[in-house]
Amino acid sequence: MINTQSRVDTQQKPHILVCNDDGIEGEGIHALAAAMKKIGRVTVVAPAEPHSGKSHAMTLGTPLRIKKFLKNGRFFGYTVSGTPVDCIKVALSHILPSKPDLIVSGINYGSNTAINTIYSGTVAAALEGAIQGITSLAFSLTTYEHADFTYAGKFARKLAKKVLLEGLPPDTILSANIPNIPESQIAGIMITEQGRSRWEEDAIERNDMFGNPYYWLNGTLCLLDDTVRKDEFAVRQNYVAVTPISCDLTNHSYIHTLEQWNLQK
Amino acid sequence: MINTQSRVDTQQKPHILVCNDDGIEGEGIHALAAAMKKIGRVTVVAPAEPHSGKSHAMTLGTPLRIKKFLKNGRFFGYTVSGTPVDCIKVALSHILPSKPDLIVSGINYGSNTAINTIYSGTVAAALEGAIQGITSLAFSLTTYEHADFTYAGKFARKLAKKVLLEGLPPDTILSANIPNIPESQIAGIMITEQGRSRWEEDAIERNDMFGNPYYWLNGTLCLLDDTVRKDEFAVRQNYVAVTPISCDLTNHSYIHTLEQWNLQK
Repeated sequence: MINTQSRVDTQQKPHILVCNDDGIEGEGIHALAAAMKKIGRVTVVAPAEPHSGKSHAMTLGTPLRIKKFLKNGRFFGYTVSGTPVDCIKVALSHILPSKPDLIVSGINYGSNTAINTIYSGTVAAALEGAIQGITSLAFSLTTYEHADFTYAGKFARKLAKKVLLEGLPPDTILSANIPNIPESQIAGIMITEQGRSRWEEDAIERNDMFGNPYYWLNGTLCLLDDTVRKDEFAVRQNYVAVTPISCDLTNHSYIHTLEQWNLQK
Repeated sequence: MINTQSRVDTQQKPHILVCNDDGIEGEGIHALAAAMKKIGRVTVVAPAEPHSGKSHAMTLGTPLRIKKFLKNGRFFGYTVSGTPVDCIKVALSHILPSKPDLIVSGINYGSNTAINTIYSGTVAAALEGAIQGITSLAFSLTTYEHADFTYAGKFARKLAKKVLLEGLPPDTILSANIPNIPESQIAGIMITEQGRSRWEEDAIERNDMFGNPYYWLNGTLCLLDDTVRKDEFAVRQNYVAVTPISCDLTNHSYIHTLEQWNLQK
């Protein structure tokens, strides 16, 4: 496998762009930025508001604003008034003086395994980096509450260092899903495939004050496979799941069958 | 290849759900609904507003509304106040009495080839159908102006009939990109792979009336490969490009290399 994305001279401190989909106030991006500051120069560009479930959406119909964001009175990073993918696009075209060496996205609240890979803004921000030819990683913690980013931050730093040395193939990121448990309970690090799952939809229907119905998306995640080489199953067994994710959506294995359909006729 | 999605008894008229991302007022969905009415019972559920570039985004933070949409004073379909993926979710959970036999999405203004596959709300609506276990197709016309849906509608009907007979593998749709030319000039129908491309970002920066800058996403599509088996190249050669698209984003070919990284250490 030839790694075509640029490797970085390790003598020089790498420039790392940090993004997420929970928005700049999300706890996870602060843990990720802190972890990255130990190995590189960091620029944070994140959505001004939460954008969970926004996938690879970009903003075409309205303009975007860039603002500086302070943390405890000190400059922390930039907000963009759009989606995670907007953040990467605007960061590369208008905020950063040159292409960063690495893009990291997260640390997301909640796992981005199985079908959530395709809904995730965290994964999409990293994929947008890969599309632009930049080595990119996505990190997610498998919980929505009582989040402890200690081990996740440490693992993010380890994976970032490794990927800066090794590079990645074109259009491919690594998406890491990290169990929300102390390091001592981590079963290991597993290279995984995106599992199969689906949200069984159970949209809530209610009436507003005028008696008109409205609907609120809601559902239950149903796992459709259960081998430890699949991401969601691995994290449920306390493994860190590292999945190579690509923006090539072709089902290559079905090309030959389709050609037999003789659609020409 | 085993076709696990349900085949349909051809003696019975299939029920076809029609969606898009250009919104219910887009010309393409009316062409697609008209084409499908010749082979099945049709229900249209589409976004109330245009949602180009919204990818697989879903609406989690705000409620959704369903409304009836009239065309020339007669009921045409339902609008949902959200994204294409929201439309599919709400249609399946609250509008349709049972699962449809087929979901078709489009006909989109503008090609959804190469990297646009991942940005496309048209493709995402069909993929959401496949995730829910329903045979699904996406259709796009490769133009933004002077659209002539005559041949595209005819081809959509042909492909829909074929796929109702053959079925599709799990989590896989067909995405068809159709040149905006008369049928007599179509070079043929090509089974293709998603090509590689990227938008070279050139966001427009302007100042508002208060002198504050705003940014508007804008770019040029750069094609990164040029073989006729790739979707975008095929349509530029006047072929209809039919690409099998999956929601499994794993880069399977990189798993073995990653395992050699020995991340455990």
